[in-house]
Amino acid sequence: MPTKYETLLEKVYEINDLGKTMAVLSWDREVNMPAAGITARVQQMTTLSRLTHSMSTSDEFGELLEAAAAELNGAAYDSNEASLIRHLQKSYEDARKLPSEFVVRVSQVSGQAHGHWVKARAENDFASYQPWLEKNVELVQEMAELYGYEDEKYDALIDKYERDMKTAEVRAIFNAVKAELVPLRQAIEERGTAVDDSLVHQHFEIDQQKKFARYAAAAIGYDFSRGHLGTVVHPFATSFSRDDARITTRWNPDFLNPALFGTLHESGHAMYEQGTHPDLARTPLARGTSLGIHESQSRMMENMVGRRRGFWQAHFPVLQAFFPKQLSGRTVDDFYRAINKTHPSYIRVEADELTYNFHIILRFELEQAMLNGDLAVKDLPTAWNDKMNELLGVTPPTDTEGCLQDVHWTRPGFGYFPTYALGNLYAAQLFETAVSQNPTIIDELDRGQTTSLVAWMRENVHQHGRKFTPRELIQQATGQPLSHEPFMRYVTEKFSDIYGL
Amino acid sequence: MPTKYETLLEKVYEINDLGKTMAVLSWDREVNMPAAGITARVQQMTTLSRLTHSMSTSDEFGELLEAAAAELNGAAYDSNEASLIRHLQKSYEDARKLPSEFVVRVSQVSGQAHGHWVKARAENDFASYQPWLEKNVELVQEMAELYGYEDEKYDALIDKYERDMKTAEVRAIFNAVKAELVPLRQAIEERGTAVDDSLVHQHFEIDQQKKFARYAAAAIGYDFSRGHLGTVVHPFATSFSRDDARITTRWNPDFLNPALFGTLHESGHAMYEQGTHPDLARTPLARGTSLGIHESQSRMMENMVGRRRGFWQAHFPVLQAFFPKQLSGRTVDDFYRAINKTHPSYIRVEADELTYNFHIILRFELEQAMLNGDLAVKDLPTAWNDKMNELLGVTPPTDTEGCLQDVHWTRPGFGYFPTYALGNLYAAQLFETAVSQNPTIIDELDRGQTTSLVAWMRENVHQHGRKFTPRELIQQATGQPLSHEPFMRYVTEKFSDIYGL
Repeated sequence: MPTKYETLLEKVYEINDLGKTMAVLSWDREVNMPAAGITARVQQMTTLSRLTHSMSTSDEFGELLEAAAAELNGAAYDSNEASLIRHLQKSYEDARKLPSEFVVRVSQVSGQAHGHWVKARAENDFASYQPWLEKNVELVQEMAELYGYEDEKYDALIDKYERDMKTAEVRAIFNAVKAELVPLRQAIEERGTAVDDSLVHQHFEIDQQKKFARYAAAAIGYDFSRGHLGTVVHPFATSFSRDDARITTRWNPDFLNPALFGTLHESGHAMYEQGTHPDLARTPLARGTSLGIHESQSRMMENMVGRRRGFWQAHFPVLQAFFPKQLSGRTVDDFYRAINKTHPSYIRVEADELTYNFHIILRFELEQAMLNGDLAVKDLPTAWNDKMNELLGVTPPTDTEGCLQDVHWTRPGFGYFPTYALGNLYAAQLFETAVSQNPTIIDELDRGQTTSLVAWMRENVHQHGRKFTPRELIQQATGQPLSHEPFMRYVTEKFSDIYGL
Repeated sequence: MPTKYETLLEKVYEINDLGKTMAVLSWDREVNMPAAGITARVQQMTTLSRLTHSMSTSDEFGELLEAAAAELNGAAYDSNEASLIRHLQKSYEDARKLPSEFVVRVSQVSGQAHGHWVKARAENDFASYQPWLEKNVELVQEMAELYGYEDEKYDALIDKYERDMKTAEVRAIFNAVKAELVPLRQAIEERGTAVDDSLVHQHFEIDQQKKFARYAAAAIGYDFSRGHLGTVVHPFATSFSRDDARITTRWNPDFLNPALFGTLHESGHAMYEQGTHPDLARTPLARGTSLGIHESQSRMMENMVGRRRGFWQAHFPVLQAFFPKQLSGRTVDDFYRAINKTHPSYIRVEADELTYNFHIILRFELEQAMLNGDLAVKDLPTAWNDKMNELLGVTPPTDTEGCLQDVHWTRPGFGYFPTYALGNLYAAQLFETAVSQNPTIIDELDRGQTTSLVAWMRENVHQHGRKFTPRELIQQATGQPLSHEPFMRYVTEKFSDIYGL
C-alpha cells in the first residue's frame, strides 16, 4: 500500500512530465518549427496546458496534498519531502485563486495586445497601444486583488516571480543602488576617459562565432553532454531535465558581443538547472528557485566571469586564433576594455553592466505608479522620458526607443522586471561570499577556469533547486540578507579601474 | 447543445494533440536531444502514452463513439464524418483487444531485446539473440490470437500496418513478382553489362550535400515553408500537422546516394502528409492511410522521379555546379547509370530498386514460417541463407549481414516488412495511371518538374488521408485492384535499357 506521499509523488511526476513536454514544444517552436506550424502548435500547447492545469488544481489533488502533508507532519524543514509539500501548497493555493474566467480573459487580452504592440513599436505610435496597456493595467490590478496582499498591491505580483519578496525591500535596495550608482556614472562621464570598442564591431564569420561560443560555454562549465545549443531570434535557456538543459543564441555577423555574451548568459541559466540535485528530478523543485536567483547565475557567468580581465588572459589568444584577421595585434587589455565600455543608452537589452540596473529601477517605479493609479497610462511616455533623464541623463528620441521597447507589458506581468536587477545584486553577493570562503576561485578565474566557482554554486545554490525561497537561500549561502553593497563594491572597483577614477 | 459527434470531435482533437506532441518528443529525441536526456524523455513519453491510451480506450470514449455513430447513421460512406467514425471504431476495437498486461510484456521484452540484438549483430552471434527472437515469435503468436483472424494468423498482423490486406493476396502478388523478377535479374547478370558507379563514390563535402539535398527536395515539391530538414542517425519523416511535416537525413561524406536519395525518399513521405485535406486536421485521418501507400509516395519520389533520366537532364548541371571537382566532364548518362546500378547485395537498406523486393519477399516468407511454427528460430540463419541464394544468388558470409541485420524483429512487429514491397508496387500502379490520365506529367518530369504528378497524387491519394483503406484507395485511384504488372513493366523497361537486354 503506497503512502499518501508516494501517491502524491506519482501525480507530481506525471504533471511534471507534461510541463516538461510543454517546454519541449516551446523550444521546438522557437528553434525548428516552420512558421506555418504555429496553428497546430498552439492547439497542442493549449491542450497540454488545459490538462496540466486541471490535474494540478483539482479538488482531488488538493485533498491528496493535504493528506500527504498531514502524513509528513514533523519532517525536517529542509528535507526534500517537506520542501516539495511547501512548494506544492503555495502553487496550489495561487492557482486556485485565479478563476478560469480570469485566466481566459488574460490570455485573450495578451493574445491581441502583442500584435498591437508590435505594430505600435514599429510605427512609434504609443497612442494606438495605449488602450491595450490600459487593459493590462486593469488586469494586474484585478490580479493583485485576487492573489491578495498585506502591505502593498505590488507585493502580490512580485511574489509570483520572486517568492516572498516585498516591494518595500526592493524599493529600499534599489534606492540605495540609485544613491551610489548615479554619482558613479556621473563621475565616469565627467572623467571623460575614452574606451574604444571598435574591435568588437567588425565582421565576425558566424560559423567561427558558433565554434567559439561553444568553446567559451564549455570553458565556463556548461556541460554539452547534457545540453544543446540552438539558434533563435530571442535567446533563452530551458531544461527538460537536469540532463537536458539547453541554451539558444542569435548570431550577429558584425558585432561580437551579442552571441558571445548571450551564450555565456544562457549557459549560466542552464548550468543552474544542470546542477539541481538528482533526487529532485521530475518534481517542480528541480528548477531555479526564482527568476532573480536564476538571473544571478546567468549574469555572474556573463559579466563577473565572462567580462573579467583574468578570464580573457587565458582565452583571448584562442579567440584571436578563431579571428586572426580581426584581432591580431590587439591586446587582452584592448579587448577587456572594449567589452566593458559603459555609456548611457536607451535600450535595456543593449545596456552595459553598470547602467543596466537603471533601466530596471525605472520600470519598477513606473509599474508601481500605474498599478496604484498614480500614473495614468496616457502619461507614461512623459514619465518614462523624465526618469531616463534623471537616471541616465538621456532622453529617448522616440517611444519605440522608450516605453514601447519591451514585450513584457503586452502581458499582465508587472513584478517581473525587478528580478533582473535583483539578479545582478544576488550575483555579486554570492560571488563575494564564494571568493571569501575559497580564494582559489580567483586564481582559477585568472587562468580562465571556473571549477571552484561552479563547485561553490553547485553546493550552495544549484543543488537546492526550489527547496528554499530566494530569501532563505541567500541567507544560508551568504550568512546575510540581500544587500546592494557587494554589487556596488564590484562595479565601483571594476569601472574605477577601467575609467581611471 | 453540441451534438454527440461534436463532443466526440473535441475528444479526438485532444487525443490527436497529445499524439502529435509525442511525435515532437520523438523528433527532438532523434535530432537535438543529448544522449543523457534519454531517461527523462522516456518518462515524458511514457506519461503521455499512458494518458493517450487511457483516453482513447476508455468505456466513456467507446460510448461516445457509439452514440456519435448512431447519430450519423446514414452519412455518406466517403464523408469525413463517416470515415472518421469507421477509423475510430476499428482503432478502438483493436486497442481494446490487447490487455494492458500484454502491452506491458511487449514493452518489457522489446526494451531488453533491442540491447541483445545490438550486441549480437556487432559480434555476429545469432545464438545469443535466439532466445529473444523466440520470445518475440511467441508474442506475435499471442498477438495474432488476441486480434483474431479468419483465414491465416499472419492476417491479424499485417492488418495493423496495411489495413484489411490478406496474406493470401500478398503471397499471390509476391509470387508473381518473383516469377518475373528472378529471370530478369538473371538475364541482367548473364548479359554482363558493366555499370561504373565510381562517380557517386567520391568525397562530397557535407555542407554542399546539405544545400543540394534542400534544392532537390524543393525541386520535387517538398514545401519547406511547411517543413524542416534535420540531421539524424536513422532517417525518418514525421508530421505534427499538414503545415509542419518534417524530414531527416544522414550525411555520408564519401558516397552521394544515401543523403540525396534518402532526402527524396523522406520528402515523398512528408509531401503525403503536407497534402492531406485541411478539413481532416487534428484527427487521425490527417495521415497516410497505410505504411504501404505511404511507402509508395516515398519510393515514387526516390526512384521513379529521383532516379529518372529526364529528371537529371534538368538537375545534373546544378549538381555539377555544386560539385565541380567531382563531376565536371561527366555526362547525365554517366550519372543516370551510376545511380541505377543493380547488383545482388546482402543488406536490405542498401539494395537497389530492382533487387529490393527480393529482400522483402524473403522476410515475408520467413515471418510466416516462424509464426506458423514451420520454422524454428534456431534454424533461421540457414533458412535465411538458403532463400538469399534462391532469390539473389548470393549467400551472406555472416549472420550480421544476414538474419541479424534488421531492427524490426527486436519488436513483435511481424507484418511490417511486406509493406515496403507493396509500396513499390502501389507506386508503379499509381504512376502509370497518373501518366495515362495526364501525359503532361512525363513532359514535365523530363524538364525536372513534378507539378502535375504531385497534383495528381494530391487529388487521388494525399488529400484523402486515412479516409479509405489501401484497397479502397488504390481501386478508386487506378480503377483496378493492386497488381504487380505496372511495377514489372516499369523495371523491365528501365533496366533493359540500362543493361542493354
